[in-house]
Amino acid sequence: MQIGMIGLGKMGGNMAERLRRGGHEVVGYDRDPQLSDVSSLQELVDRLQAPRAVWVMVPAGAPTQSTIDELGKLLSAGDIVVDGGNSHYVDDQRHGEELAARGIGFVDCGVSGGVWGLENGYALMVGGSQDDVRRLMPVFETLKPAGEDGFVHAGRIGAGHFAKMVHNGIEYGMMQAFAEGWELLEASDVVTDVADSFRSWRQGTVIRSWLLDLLVRALDEDEHLAGLRGYAQDSGEGRWTVQAAVEHAVPLPVITAALYARFASRQDDSPAMKMVAALRNQFGGHAVTAKEGEVAKGADAPGADVVPPVEVEG
Amino acid sequence: MQIGMIGLGKMGGNMAERLRRGGHEVVGYDRDPQLSDVSSLQELVDRLQAPRAVWVMVPAGAPTQSTIDELGKLLSAGDIVVDGGNSHYVDDQRHGEELAARGIGFVDCGVSGGVWGLENGYALMVGGSQDDVRRLMPVFETLKPAGEDGFVHAGRIGAGHFAKMVHNGIEYGMMQAFAEGWELLEASDVVTDVADSFRSWRQGTVIRSWLLDLLVRALDEDEHLAGLRGYAQDSGEGRWTVQAAVEHAVPLPVITAALYARFASRQDDSPAMKMVAALRNQFGGHAVTAKEGEVAKGADAPGADVVPPVEVEG
Amino acid sequence: MQIGMIGLGKMGGNMAERLRRGGHEVVGYDRDPQLSDVSSLQELVDRLQAPRAVWVMVPAGAPTQSTIDELGKLLSAGDIVVDGGNSHYVDDQRHGEELAARGIGFVDCGVSGGVWGLENGYALMVGGSQDDVRRLMPVFETLKPAGEDGFVHAGRIGAGHFAKMVHNGIEYGMMQAFAEGWELLEASDVVTDVADSFRSWRQGTVIRSWLLDLLVRALDEDEHLAGLRGYAQDSGEGRWTVQAAVEHAVPLPVITAALYARFASRQDDSPAMKMVAALRNQFGGHAVTAKEGEVAKGADAPGADVVPPVEVEG
Amino acid sequence: MQIGMIGLGKMGGNMAERLRRGGHEVVGYDRDPQLSDVSSLQELVDRLQAPRAVWVMVPAGAPTQSTIDELGKLLSAGDIVVDGGNSHYVDDQRHGEELAARGIGFVDCGVSGGVWGLENGYALMVGGSQDDVRRLMPVFETLKPAGEDGFVHAGRIGAGHFAKMVHNGIEYGMMQAFAEGWELLEASDVVTDVADSFRSWRQGTVIRSWLLDLLVRALDEDEHLAGLRGYAQDSGEGRWTVQAAVEHAVPLPVITAALYARFASRQDDSPAMKMVAALRNQFGGHAVTAKEGEVAKGADAPGADVVPPVEVEG
Repeated sequence: MQIGMIGLGKMGGNMAERLRRGGHEVVGYDRDPQLSDVSSLQELVDRLQAPRAVWVMVPAGAPTQSTIDELGKLLSAGDIVVDGGNSHYVDDQRHGEELAARGIGFVDCGVSGGVWGLENGYALMVGGSQDDVRRLMPVFETLKPAGEDGFVHAGRIGAGHFAKMVHNGIEYGMMQAFAEGWELLEASDVVTDVADSFRSWRQGTVIRSWLLDLLVRALDEDEHLAGLRGYAQDSGEGRWTVQAAVEHAVPLPVITAALYARFASRQDDSPAMKMVAALRNQFGGHAVTAKEGEVAKGADAPGADVVPPVEVEG
Repeated sequence: MQIGMIGLGKMGGNMAERLRRGGHEVVGYDRDPQLSDVSSLQELVDRLQAPRAVWVMVPAGAPTQSTIDELGKLLSAGDIVVDGGNSHYVDDQRHGEELAARGIGFVDCGVSGGVWGLENGYALMVGGSQDDVRRLMPVFETLKPAGEDGFVHAGRIGAGHFAKMVHNGIEYGMMQAFAEGWELLEASDVVTDVADSFRSWRQGTVIRSWLLDLLVRALDEDEHLAGLRGYAQDSGEGRWTVQAAVEHAVPLPVITAALYARFASRQDDSPAMKMVAALRNQFGGHAVTAKEGEVAKGADAPGADVVPPVEVEG
Repeated sequence: MQIGMIGLGKMGGNMAERLRRGGHEVVGYDRDPQLSDVSSLQELVDRLQAPRAVWVMVPAGAPTQSTIDELGKLLSAGDIVVDGGNSHYVDDQRHGEELAARGIGFVDCGVSGGVWGLENGYALMVGGSQDDVRRLMPVFETLKPAGEDGFVHAGRIGAGHFAKMVHNGIEYGMMQAFAEGWELLEASDVVTDVADSFRSWRQGTVIRSWLLDLLVRALDEDEHLAGLRGYAQDSGEGRWTVQAAVEHAVPLPVITAALYARFASRQDDSPAMKMVAALRNQFGGHAVTAKEGEVAKGADAPGADVVPPVEVEG
Repeated sequence: MQIGMIGLGKMGGNMAERLRRGGHEVVGYDRDPQLSDVSSLQELVDRLQAPRAVWVMVPAGAPTQSTIDELGKLLSAGDIVVDGGNSHYVDDQRHGEELAARGIGFVDCGVSGGVWGLENGYALMVGGSQDDVRRLMPVFETLKPAGEDGFVHAGRIGAGHFAKMVHNGIEYGMMQAFAEGWELLEASDVVTDVADSFRSWRQGTVIRSWLLDLLVRALDEDEHLAGLRGYAQDSGEGRWTVQAAVEHAVPLPVITAALYARFASRQDDSPAMKMVAALRNQFGGHAVTAKEGEVAKGADAPGADVVPPVEVEG
């Protein structure tokens, strides 16, 4: 079928390519004229035959909002918009209502697959009405991996991004579980072949998984990750997962711990732990570790109380 | 090769069977005479040709200790013992020393694979000297899955069980991550097809894994797990993982949260939360939920302050 | 000075009483005519001399919103409104703007002190402009405890409720810390006099605090809290604290764990732990504990694998 | 009464001083001859009249073990030893048995109070037999604070250190709760007077406590703790609390999170978060932050994906 694709970066560009390989006609628009088939959204809309289908693949938040606002003005009743970016599911519901007021359909689509998706297909989670989803099935069929899985119509508008959000929350927890296990093995003096242990786990174990395969690839490149800093961004979906859990009174200790580990990883120095150090100093004269160039306030040298002297006590 | 197998339950019995299918001669001993090839450990030792190899597959702790004690008396210098159970790695080190004093070799072996191992092979993580491990390689080759992974010589004595312990800790974290995501999706009114969402994730996603496959099997049997209680045992290895982390000053927030969720799942009523309820009552006159037959102490009816009245305040 | 008080429940009623004892003229309104000095908000406004001050002490959310909406219509430029309820700080900012558009001042005020406040005074945290706060100081001076503390002008509009929100988040963490320590002592067979241990801590220790005093009062009434259920509500501020932390990328492991413990305490059965039980069953044939009247799916009796047999393995 | 005091550092020295002020005769021994009244443990024992009482106030572990070993040889049946250091409660039980075999009594005593104890008294938690504790009551009465609290006979041998251990676990949780709240307030742009907010909380609030007083003192000295590093030691008791909880299957999410925050505070770079960064890089081409002098592996500049581009996706 014919589809417009807005946003032709690494993700949108690859998806357009996969669609073309699958026999679809893709009209692409990007702010970068070298990537773009048309010079404006107006021209994109003009190039598509009604009823049109337009896939939006731009960053969540303001860029997606302004794209959908503009499409609302340019498209006609009977057209349909897919938001394939990482939008917050609460925004989907508003977008759907705004477009519905003009007779334009809306489907939200969470996409997983990263740089591997062009060849292997993208896992798709979609939300919207039966009719809207059905119209787009030729596109979804081409984008998804071969086989019976990799696609779900998860519910009404917002359900696609909600499911993708929870997928990412689970992913945070799994990554952190592997990372903690790796740190403990590296700290042990009993296990001397940590990387080989992870390699061996790819068969026969309970934890075999694609993340384990990736982990082994990372260790193949740099066995002790000596070239990396322990610094991890979070992409928004982890935060939304925790916030949705708090709203629903669902306890998520593992997923939240994984998110907080990322927050902490980005702090040069933890303000909270400054306060803990300050309190220890107040009640016990415990050594505090002063910044370079400062004088330690405690009586003892920094680090001296790893084995705590009984002299100062909590 | 020839090997003695002590403990012929579901795990040991299947492993003996896989070894026999692989052409090894297995002499099995179990306390249950119907399973056993010999009537005593003495007879088992007599039936094996020196230098002997004996695989111990009995519960960790006292049963393993007494079996190894007895083998120490019955075996001869040059023989070798494998502990394939779930022993604590600190016990391995003692067992190795006790046997070494009599010239008997020792290898610890963590085994993963559960009821699927007979057909698919068992993932093996072993600790011990190069020589001891090399002698047992024919057995390991048969037990492990086909392919290049599924076996690691992880380090000195204790390393096999240490690696297996950490494997299980990672498994706790992964299971809890999936479980939390499932609970949140079930609580949401946006995603109406939760089981199908999990099914779809088996292809193309970052979280595809054997645990996800098992999760889908569980939902195939009982879509909302209505027939189960939220009650999960822990097997010891999760506890040892946390204790090893505390000893090494390695923070394991995710794995520990997963362990604690299991502890809490087994409490009919949380003592800690009784205290929180009691404190809320003390400072605020907040409603406490009394046990059946008791009178609530707070002014309000139980549950009345979900939306807290401004009347009583923290 | 003269002030209107809207909401004369346990909290607002006591505050009105403390203000009257302090020499202020309070005109009170409540939906309950028996508590109310006036029959309507219109009459309340008519009874006050311009420039008026009105203190709103009703539940957060819709009740506060509708009260402020109505006051916006009834009051005049130069009047001032105080929101002393538990409003979310983001709502304060909107309320302040709505009232400012009509020339009406606005101050938000977080109030702590519970049922003890009438005699001991209320801790007050306020947000708003210097001028607005200054006008209300006679009222704040009377409500606050004697002494130099118990009052802070924490910043611009919203700062009062933000500070109160964080106060309550800290409170959650402290309560949970005490509760966990109590649970562990109760579980120990070494310490046989748990209540006396807590009593003794009221002097000379690092953890002496008002919460410890309350905890001892609770144990005085019921030494093992046998009459309570482990069931704790949360008041909204804990949730907002976590959500604010997620927005600011501030890790709050302790406060969040305390909130999640409350969520979990209100679940009859944990959905997440059903999934963990289901997964254990899938890979290991581990015993699952079925609901009453259901047949356990695992081979073993419920609870049988506290010491795990080596038969089934992760 | 007459008592020997072994270990005259900041803690033991102050306790000896408080005892002397209270009319007791203290014979002190320290490895530092300038602090010591006697030149050897032998001389200490000779100077005391039988039945003797000796208070051991040296670091936990090897120093306490060797002191108790030596006292076991020097003392006589009917004498009594108090361990006032921070010993692990499991060691107490062994020490008690070793001394009992020679007819020597043993009492373990957890001590809280830090540098403030000399003037205000020390909170004491003791474990041992009724008779042994009764003999030492004159000493405990002098050391404890004036008033009815500050002393507990918590149970049999080990109970004093167990109670003290849990006290410290609670303390970890409380400190972390305050620290997290402070970090969130500092991160907010709504509350502009953070230190004054904490000051105000000292009256009328639920969280008023000695730790809050100390926190305010710390902010009085350095309002944003700019001179400190976020680096906090742990003293052993936090670790033992978590390990005891794991043994008893008691979930301690808050206390454990506080302990882990300390572990993490001492890591220059988190190994676990290196792995998370590596995994993100593997599946998404996410930017990783390389060490100085290394080239970032990701396509994007470090930090560029705070707002994640839709290009690369989990």
